[in-house]
Amino acid sequence: MAANAQAKRPPANAALIDELRAFLGDRLSTVRAIRDRHGKDESYHPTVAPDAVAFAESTEEVAEIVKRCAAHRVPVVPFGTGTALEGGIAALHGGICIDLSGMNQVLRVSAEDLDCAVQAGVTRKRLNEHLRDTGLFFPIDPGADASLGGMAATRASGTNAVRYGTMRENVLGLTAVLADGRIVRTGTRARKSSAGYDLTRLLVGSEGTLGVITELTLRLHGIPEAMSAAVCPFPTVADAVNTVIQTIQLGVPVARIELLDATQMDACNRYSKLNFAVLPTLFFEFHGTERGVVEQAELVGDIAAEFGGSEFQWETRAEDRSKLWQARHDAYYAALALRPGSQGMPTDVCVPISRLAECIEETRADVERAGVLAPLVGHVGDGNFHLVYVLDPENAAEIERAEELHERMVLRALAMGGTCTGEHGIGYGKLRFLEAEHGEAVAVMRQIKQALDPLNIMNPGKVIRV
Amino acid sequence: MAANAQAKRPPANAALIDELRAFLGDRLSTVRAIRDRHGKDESYHPTVAPDAVAFAESTEEVAEIVKRCAAHRVPVVPFGTGTALEGGIAALHGGICIDLSGMNQVLRVSAEDLDCAVQAGVTRKRLNEHLRDTGLFFPIDPGADASLGGMAATRASGTNAVRYGTMRENVLGLTAVLADGRIVRTGTRARKSSAGYDLTRLLVGSEGTLGVITELTLRLHGIPEAMSAAVCPFPTVADAVNTVIQTIQLGVPVARIELLDATQMDACNRYSKLNFAVLPTLFFEFHGTERGVVEQAELVGDIAAEFGGSEFQWETRAEDRSKLWQARHDAYYAALALRPGSQGMPTDVCVPISRLAECIEETRADVERAGVLAPLVGHVGDGNFHLVYVLDPENAAEIERAEELHERMVLRALAMGGTCTGEHGIGYGKLRFLEAEHGEAVAVMRQIKQALDPLNIMNPGKVIRV
Repeated sequence: MAANAQAKRPPANAALIDELRAFLGDRLSTVRAIRDRHGKDESYHPTVAPDAVAFAESTEEVAEIVKRCAAHRVPVVPFGTGTALEGGIAALHGGICIDLSGMNQVLRVSAEDLDCAVQAGVTRKRLNEHLRDTGLFFPIDPGADASLGGMAATRASGTNAVRYGTMRENVLGLTAVLADGRIVRTGTRARKSSAGYDLTRLLVGSEGTLGVITELTLRLHGIPEAMSAAVCPFPTVADAVNTVIQTIQLGVPVARIELLDATQMDACNRYSKLNFAVLPTLFFEFHGTERGVVEQAELVGDIAAEFGGSEFQWETRAEDRSKLWQARHDAYYAALALRPGSQGMPTDVCVPISRLAECIEETRADVERAGVLAPLVGHVGDGNFHLVYVLDPENAAEIERAEELHERMVLRALAMGGTCTGEHGIGYGKLRFLEAEHGEAVAVMRQIKQALDPLNIMNPGKVIRV
Repeated sequence: MAANAQAKRPPANAALIDELRAFLGDRLSTVRAIRDRHGKDESYHPTVAPDAVAFAESTEEVAEIVKRCAAHRVPVVPFGTGTALEGGIAALHGGICIDLSGMNQVLRVSAEDLDCAVQAGVTRKRLNEHLRDTGLFFPIDPGADASLGGMAATRASGTNAVRYGTMRENVLGLTAVLADGRIVRTGTRARKSSAGYDLTRLLVGSEGTLGVITELTLRLHGIPEAMSAAVCPFPTVADAVNTVIQTIQLGVPVARIELLDATQMDACNRYSKLNFAVLPTLFFEFHGTERGVVEQAELVGDIAAEFGGSEFQWETRAEDRSKLWQARHDAYYAALALRPGSQGMPTDVCVPISRLAECIEETRADVERAGVLAPLVGHVGDGNFHLVYVLDPENAAEIERAEELHERMVLRALAMGGTCTGEHGIGYGKLRFLEAEHGEAVAVMRQIKQALDPLNIMNPGKVIRV
C-alpha cells in the first residue's frame, strides 16, 4: 500500500529541497500557508499544495530548478497569479511549484513594430500601465489581472477577443524551459513566418505540461482614436444572438460584444445599484476613428432594432463607458451576491455562432428544470459563454446536480461542433472531455507529451492523461 | 556502393506499386512525364520525380496509401498544385507522390458561422467561385491558384495577410493522415478553444512532414461593402516604408499594402504597357463601408504626402482597380521579361517593420554591387519582401553570385530579428537556414518529427534534417 502510494506520488525528497534551498536561499519556501496558496486557483477545485515553492527570477534559474527536479524525477508546476479556473496549478502529484511573479520586467517595447517582450510574471494590467505613454495597448482581457505567461499557457482570451484575437494570435514568440532544463526560443519578431513547426502555438495552451514559459514576445495594438459603448436589452436570448450573428456577418469590427441573461442582469442591478431592464442584454464596445465609431454604433443599432432590441443606449464619454463595463466586470461577484455564503462554479463552452442561441436555450431550460441558480454571461461574438453555478458549498446534492448539468452542457456543445472550453483550459477539471472532443487526436497530443517530457514531470495530471 | 545508395534511397519496390495499382487502378501512374511533372515546383529547384503518383479521391484512400507505404518503408510526398517555391514536392528519396487534386469538393459552407469545409485539393479560386453568391470570400491570396491543402501545409499568405492574416489564422481545423495511416481530426468549429495542444497550428506549416492534410475547416470573411485601390510613388524606399509603418501604427485596417521598387516598376511599365513613374511605389487596397473606405484612403493619402508621396491616385471603380492589381500580379512575369530566356529565382524574407527599409536598402546595395538584375516586391505591411533574381540559366557564375546574395539577404534578415521565409516555406531550399533562425528549437521540432514519423517516410528531407 505504502509503496503504491509512493509510486503514484514521487516525494519531493529532502535532498532536492536542500539542493534548491542552497541555490535559491530564502526564495525557496516550504511554509504551509505559502504552499497552500500555490495549490488553489480561483475555482471550486480543492487545494492541492506542492511540496515547496521556488520563487524564480530568471529563465536561467527556472532552467536550473527544472534540471534538478528532472534529476530527482520530481514534478514541476508553474504558477503565475493563481487566477485560473480548472485546477491547473493543483500539485496533484506533489513536487515543486515555480512561482514566476518575480519575473515581472517589461524587457522591450517597440512602438514602430507594435510589439514588446516581457517576462512571464508581468500581469496584463502592469503591461498596460507600462505602455500608457506609447499610444499602444495589449488588448487581451480575461477579467482577472493574470500574468501574461499564465495567459499564454492557458490560451486565454476574454471580452476583446472578437476584435483582437486570443493569446494564440497575440503571442509572436516565447522562451520556455523544457522538461530536461533546455531553454528554447520560438518564433521571431517577424509578423509572419513559414520557417518550420509552429512551436509557439504548440506551447501556447499547453498549460505547463510541455514547458515553463518564462518570456514572451507580444503583439501590441494602437489605442483607437475613439471608443464608444452601448447597451441594448432584447425580448429573448435568440433575438440578442441573432443581432450578434448579423453584426459579425456584416464584418462590423466590434471590439466587445457581451451577452448577459435576465438572471445575470437582475444580479448586476442589485449588486451595482443599476436600473437596467431584467432582460437578455448585449453590451457593445466600438473602437475606431471618430466617424467610424459613430458608423459602427448606428449600424449595430439598426440591426438590434430589427430583432426587437429596445433602447439602444450609446455612450461615448469615458466615465459612462466605465460605469457600463464595471457592471459587466462585476458580474461574477454580482452572481455570488444573489446568495450569501455561496460558492461559484464557473463553466465555459464555445460553439459555432449559428448554434449559440440553441445551445444557450437548451442549457437554460435544463438548469431551470434542475432548480439551480446559474446566471449566464457570454463573449458571444466568439460563440463563447459561461454559466456560473451559484452553490451552497455544504449541499452535496446540489453540487452533484450542478456537475451533471455542467456535463450535459459540455456534451451539448460538443454535439454542436463546439469545444469543451473556449478559454478556461483543461487543467484537470475537464480532462474527461478531451477525448470526447478530439478522439484520436488526443493520442497524438500524448505522443508529443511523451516525446518532450518522457519522465512526465511537467505539471503531471493536467491536459493529457499519460 | 550499391548497398549504400539503396540505404539512402529506399526503392518504391515493385510489390508496393503492384499493391497500389490493384487498389487504385488507373489512378496510379508510373508514366515518366506524369512523375516528372510531380517532381518539380515553380521554382528553380530541379525536377526530382517520385517513383509513382497516386491520385487519391478520399481521406480513407490517402490513409490506405500511407499505410501501405509505411509497411514498405517507402516515402510519401503530398502534392496539391505544384506551385510552391522551395522544392517541397521534390521526391528526394523517391517514393509515392499522393496527388490530392481529385479531392476537390467544397463540403460545407456555413454563412452564419463564416466558415466552410473543403477537401484539400480545392484551389483558392475554385472556393471563391463556389462562394460567389454567399456574400463571403476566402481572402488568402499567395498569387498562384494553389490548393488550400498545399497553402495550409506551407503556411501561405500573400497580399491580403496584413488585414486578414495568414493560413495560420484562417484554418480552424483539419483532417490529416499521419505516418502510420491514422486519420486525425484537429480543432472544432468553435472560433476559439483552450482544449489541449494546438495540433491544427502544428500541422499548418509542416509541409507534409508530419501528415498529409486531406480536409480543412476554413474561416471566411464577408465581402466588404466597398473597396478602393490607390497607387503612390515615393522618392525613396525609406519614404515608402515609413508611410507603411505609420499607416499600420495608426491602426488603419488596409487590406493590401504592396511595395514595388523602381526596377520592378520599370518592368511593369514595359510588360503591362503602363506609364507609372519609375520610383519606389506603394499599391494600396481599402475594404470597408463606403464612408470607411473614403476615410482610410484620405488618411493614408495624408500620411503618404508627409513622406513625399506624390500623385496619390485613388480608384474605386472595379475595372480601374483590376488594372492596377493586374500589373502587380504580373510582376513576376514582368521581371522575367526584362531579360528574354532568363530563369527566375524568387526569394522571401520577413523582418520587423522597423528594420524593413534598412533591410531592403542594404540588400539593394548588395545586389547592385554584384551587378545582378533583381527587382523587388513586398507585402510590406507585414515586413515581408521578395527579390526575384533574373538569371541566365546557362551562366553558372551568375547563379552562384545570386545564391551568395540570397544567403547574405537571409542572414541579414535573421540578424534583424526576422525569419528566413515569410511565406514560401523551408522545403529543402532553406533547410540550411532553419538552425540559424531557431537554434535549440530545431531539436524540439526534430523530436516531434521523430515521435510522429519514426520511420521518416513523410516527405523526408524537407523542413527538418533527421
